[in-house]
Amino acid sequence: MDSILKNINNLQISQRGLEMPSSPIRKLAPLAYAAEDRGIKIYRLNIGQPDLPSPPTAIEALKHIDRTTLEYSPSQGFLSLRKKLSGYYKRFNIDLTPEEIIVTNGGSEAVLFAFLSCLNPGDEIIVPEPAYANYMAFAVSAGAVIRTVTTTIDEGFCLPKVERFEELINERTRAILICNPNNPTGYLYNQKEMNQIRDLVLKYNLYLFSDEVYREFIYTGSPYISAMHLEGIEQNVILIDSVSKRYSECGIRIGALATKNAEVRKIVMKFCQARLSPPLIGQIIAEASIDETEEYAREVYDEYMERRKCLIDGVNKIPGCYTPIPMGAFYTVAKLPVDDSEKFCSWCLSDFVWRDELTPYGSEGETIMMAPAAGFYTNTNLGRNEVRLAYVLNKKDLKRALYLLEIALEKYNHIDKSGNL
Amino acid sequence: MDSILKNINNLQISQRGLEMPSSPIRKLAPLAYAAEDRGIKIYRLNIGQPDLPSPPTAIEALKHIDRTTLEYSPSQGFLSLRKKLSGYYKRFNIDLTPEEIIVTNGGSEAVLFAFLSCLNPGDEIIVPEPAYANYMAFAVSAGAVIRTVTTTIDEGFCLPKVERFEELINERTRAILICNPNNPTGYLYNQKEMNQIRDLVLKYNLYLFSDEVYREFIYTGSPYISAMHLEGIEQNVILIDSVSKRYSECGIRIGALATKNAEVRKIVMKFCQARLSPPLIGQIIAEASIDETEEYAREVYDEYMERRKCLIDGVNKIPGCYTPIPMGAFYTVAKLPVDDSEKFCSWCLSDFVWRDELTPYGSEGETIMMAPAAGFYTNTNLGRNEVRLAYVLNKKDLKRALYLLEIALEKYNHIDKSGNL
Repeated sequence: MDSILKNINNLQISQRGLEMPSSPIRKLAPLAYAAEDRGIKIYRLNIGQPDLPSPPTAIEALKHIDRTTLEYSPSQGFLSLRKKLSGYYKRFNIDLTPEEIIVTNGGSEAVLFAFLSCLNPGDEIIVPEPAYANYMAFAVSAGAVIRTVTTTIDEGFCLPKVERFEELINERTRAILICNPNNPTGYLYNQKEMNQIRDLVLKYNLYLFSDEVYREFIYTGSPYISAMHLEGIEQNVILIDSVSKRYSECGIRIGALATKNAEVRKIVMKFCQARLSPPLIGQIIAEASIDETEEYAREVYDEYMERRKCLIDGVNKIPGCYTPIPMGAFYTVAKLPVDDSEKFCSWCLSDFVWRDELTPYGSEGETIMMAPAAGFYTNTNLGRNEVRLAYVLNKKDLKRALYLLEIALEKYNHIDKSGNL
Repeated sequence: MDSILKNINNLQISQRGLEMPSSPIRKLAPLAYAAEDRGIKIYRLNIGQPDLPSPPTAIEALKHIDRTTLEYSPSQGFLSLRKKLSGYYKRFNIDLTPEEIIVTNGGSEAVLFAFLSCLNPGDEIIVPEPAYANYMAFAVSAGAVIRTVTTTIDEGFCLPKVERFEELINERTRAILICNPNNPTGYLYNQKEMNQIRDLVLKYNLYLFSDEVYREFIYTGSPYISAMHLEGIEQNVILIDSVSKRYSECGIRIGALATKNAEVRKIVMKFCQARLSPPLIGQIIAEASIDETEEYAREVYDEYMERRKCLIDGVNKIPGCYTPIPMGAFYTVAKLPVDDSEKFCSWCLSDFVWRDELTPYGSEGETIMMAPAAGFYTNTNLGRNEVRLAYVLNKKDLKRALYLLEIALEKYNHIDKSGNL
């Protein structure tokens, strides 16, 4: 019994808790708050929080909720919402019945429940990187291991060759995870690449977790090829979805996990029942959003299309900067003429400030916030001179942010060279 | 490589997925749907879904939400809500700053994140049983093991002696979990029992996870002793909370995890950042609810108080039935004159139906639904003749349900004795 007492005053933190990555996007937040406290206006290129209005039909539905008791909804989500989602997927030639759709607390919970249901501790998932950092967090939560195949900015972030995947495949490999269109790169997989993934999934009998929350935002006219379109792996595919990005409804926390694999659904439902139900009000809002006019979707699309052009053109005009042209989502990864983008991004918030005649009245100056790309790679040597830029600012602010970026780079590199940083 | 191919057409389900318990409360659902399809009215004594109205201030706040973009909120929850919660806890002499409070997706997520942050796979938690079945589900999710000390209906579900806890304590024991007031028993721990728990926590340096979501509902005038009131274990206590029950707001999915342990909060926040944010609209509603008048709370309290009397008196009048008097929450566990309550509860839905002059017009008859208590015990031999009854029905329906229960028992036992079931 004495040995049990030895830990006294030293309560244990779980190993997975220690291993959980801190969000690379939120890591600079304290520096940003401090800058704001000094009266500095920050142009946020760092976050994926859409600024555009949510669908008017959704806002109307919210205003007209006529309930006196805000009770639990079904663990799988309202049937009416699942029917609407089924109809929505049909527009993209994705055949999913309401029974095959499970409503989740955002896309986040869909990823977590997919991992918890399909993976044992130590099981491996292959993910092309750079990748959304929270996949790693959910893998750690489930005790699973993320193995990455690296895509590079110089190759435009295209999918690596089959051999690169096969090098990683071993008896613990259980899944491939893709995000398509991609966060953070904006890359969209073509038919050849999707076929390559299908063949791998089939050959090694893997799950394919496919996060397709940005499907509405494809700007190149290229076809959207869902994992659900691939023939012969119907039982392997688990679709991750969310209304957050397409309807600017990140706050309502409504996502979905959809699969034709009944066995997986049965297990996922056990996790769903344990957490009782997805948010009631969010489901009502999401359901109304699906009924929004095509005009809304077109306006949102056109706006992102213009911002994307503005951002890409602007970045590529700054000396020493380069970004490939992203086909989808609302991000791009850009290479900057710095050795360490994390250091540079911190410096922008803590040391850099700009004032001129365009600086808003009452502000002490302006700066920019970006997400250092290193957080999207597992290999810490990669992405050191890259940043993720999101175009969720209006075009005027986007242009101003690019202007500030150019000046910041000049000042930073000047200071850096003279050794004064 | 061939060995990797061996699983083909046999995708793996995770071990934890297989181990996840199915909800004992929702297991009878298919029989209930079938009964409803036959036109039978079901009086639901089985669920903890409050039927009373949510606070009028909350419903007003919902109607007046004036946002055009439904964006992410902070991962920790709105500071304004955390300030309100801090004030709310002060009413109960619980000292928690807004920084010590983390808003979660219902109490469910608070339990899950507490387990994920504090427990390694194989670590053990001691829980008095019968216990809320989903604790087991969250333990399985985190790879932790629930060990139970049994409380009994004959002793009124009081806390077992210290020795019963110490018999279970070993080098993998990391925590004690209590639910106070208790779901499913309605038991409320007294000062002596809370001191016993404190001493154990202190002696073996354990976490104390304390689920106190029913604190508003204590009917005996006995003091509410929060784990947060116990001296000397401030760093060990993790409070689990939820607005679901006290404001009849189960659907908004707003709970909280609160602890004075900064190290634990830091880790929990990593899980919070991974899932981005708790529901936006739910937080607005929860915040408004805390401002509701005392009159609302009193009316809700008085209503439950009367229902409790109605249920307890009614059950104890039925021949062969017995329930101790629950001090809090809105449940009680009752012993029925049957060998197998699961069989009896199923029979009520599939075979029993009652009609008389009070049967509602247009209905094909009436029956009752109860939660077999076996699902709240880990030892499958326990609770076999017990059910959990919730009093979330109005008094008229509650009385009718008790009337039906008495008849059902008579018929069931008669049939049973004649061997015709």
